[in-house]
Amino acid sequence: MSMSESLELVSATKSFGGWLKRYRHHARSLDCEMVFSIYLPPQAEERKVPVLWWLSGLTCNDENFMQKAGAQRLAAELGMAIICPDTSPRGLDLPGEHDSYDFGSGAGFYLNAKREPWSRHYRMYDYVNDELPSVARQHFPLNGREAISGHSMGGHGALVLALRQPGRFASVSAFAPVVNPMDAPWGQKAFKNYLGEERGDWRQYDACELVVKGVSRQPLFIDQGEADAFLDEQLKPERLETVCRTNNHPLTLRRQPGYDHSYFFIASFIDDHLRYHAKYLKLL
Amino acid sequence: MSMSESLELVSATKSFGGWLKRYRHHARSLDCEMVFSIYLPPQAEERKVPVLWWLSGLTCNDENFMQKAGAQRLAAELGMAIICPDTSPRGLDLPGEHDSYDFGSGAGFYLNAKREPWSRHYRMYDYVNDELPSVARQHFPLNGREAISGHSMGGHGALVLALRQPGRFASVSAFAPVVNPMDAPWGQKAFKNYLGEERGDWRQYDACELVVKGVSRQPLFIDQGEADAFLDEQLKPERLETVCRTNNHPLTLRRQPGYDHSYFFIASFIDDHLRYHAKYLKLL
Repeated sequence: MSMSESLELVSATKSFGGWLKRYRHHARSLDCEMVFSIYLPPQAEERKVPVLWWLSGLTCNDENFMQKAGAQRLAAELGMAIICPDTSPRGLDLPGEHDSYDFGSGAGFYLNAKREPWSRHYRMYDYVNDELPSVARQHFPLNGREAISGHSMGGHGALVLALRQPGRFASVSAFAPVVNPMDAPWGQKAFKNYLGEERGDWRQYDACELVVKGVSRQPLFIDQGEADAFLDEQLKPERLETVCRTNNHPLTLRRQPGYDHSYFFIASFIDDHLRYHAKYLKLL
Repeated sequence: MSMSESLELVSATKSFGGWLKRYRHHARSLDCEMVFSIYLPPQAEERKVPVLWWLSGLTCNDENFMQKAGAQRLAAELGMAIICPDTSPRGLDLPGEHDSYDFGSGAGFYLNAKREPWSRHYRMYDYVNDELPSVARQHFPLNGREAISGHSMGGHGALVLALRQPGRFASVSAFAPVVNPMDAPWGQKAFKNYLGEERGDWRQYDACELVVKGVSRQPLFIDQGEADAFLDEQLKPERLETVCRTNNHPLTLRRQPGYDHSYFFIASFIDDHLRYHAKYLKLL
């Protein structure tokens, strides 16, 4: 193991009999220092456990989900690890990087940027898909079974990673995901600036387009609040519903009356998602 | 109902089938505007429900517990409302009020101040014990059964309110409470500045002293993390253990190995506390 793959423990907090730990490491794919959080359930002290990757939304870092979703309770019961990466490269100071909540820091969109000045560091697809999983397998007692979920921009990330790679994840789910970023303001701003004008480059990061492309047949499990302020302009779950129906792609889309875009929405339904993944991860 | 008793809805968020609401109101006892949070479980739409008062610790406001403790899941199942007051008067600018984390704003210590310039506004005992409960009974479907709990400074508050008033609360519990503030730096700083030098005034706000005084015989249920960084200097649960033993006061003190002072500790054991209170609130 090279120096660059070493982890520095930032904090360790006991939680539901297991441990929530934060680590800092040098991310080669992003060429910067990154911090991630991992929840290790009590079972991980005795055997290898499966892991759920959680990708967070705009403005979040590795901490929000662990603090607010209330997932550790059931993860500890099931014996499931959870890893939360950060949502963008950190500690840089690229021009305009910190100017808006929906682009740059806190808004990496889980893609590999092609345009300057972003292409050197903003490679969150590679970081989340390859580098961090490789680091995690080296350092933690994981049994090789992996599932993925996320919220909003992170729901987009989870769907894209799974739809591009059949078999890579045992299961995929999302809360209020951006399903058609090519046709939503958040996605268009990100894609234009990170990727450029070529729409062929955009399609590989758009869940609706990937369902049409049809590489994966993996079932999608999605919860969407009906009182979500971003529903009509940014999230558009009906787009995914339509392409899944047309392309015969299995989708469970639950519309939850009265729920908004917050972590209170996520917390209200996270147990359903953990149990869904637990089945595919062979914990149930 | 006078104008001063009206509530302004700040936000309403659906959570576990119920509603988390924040309200602003003019607090007469504090002579300032205050915000509090209430979680109303789904059962509250059909019938009156009991309430658990939650008093938070230093630096917190009405939001921390609702965001981080994960209590709504079981509260929704049990049919229990939860109300979180703020931890001090707000919106003032008294000399030195915002200078330290353990005194002034965010650190009201649930007492009625006697010294200038604090005595006009810093009357959190009256606010939490009388005014806010009265407001809550007027505006929400509460059935009159009340329990109380809290964390750290708020655990101190919960114990003091209950021990001074036999029968006022159906049950009381605490996480990592300051049990003997008269002999701990946080408490001494607060008591000296809010109350003055007269130790007779201090005793009515010290759980250990109140157990010795023996007005109440109500059982105390306490969780304390053994890896809590404040254990030896500020919290000193062994003091309470000793006076309870000496005075034959019922105490269940659970020392939890490895747990610290954070909300991750609270979240890990909040279900035990909710079930404990549910029994006394006649929900179980």
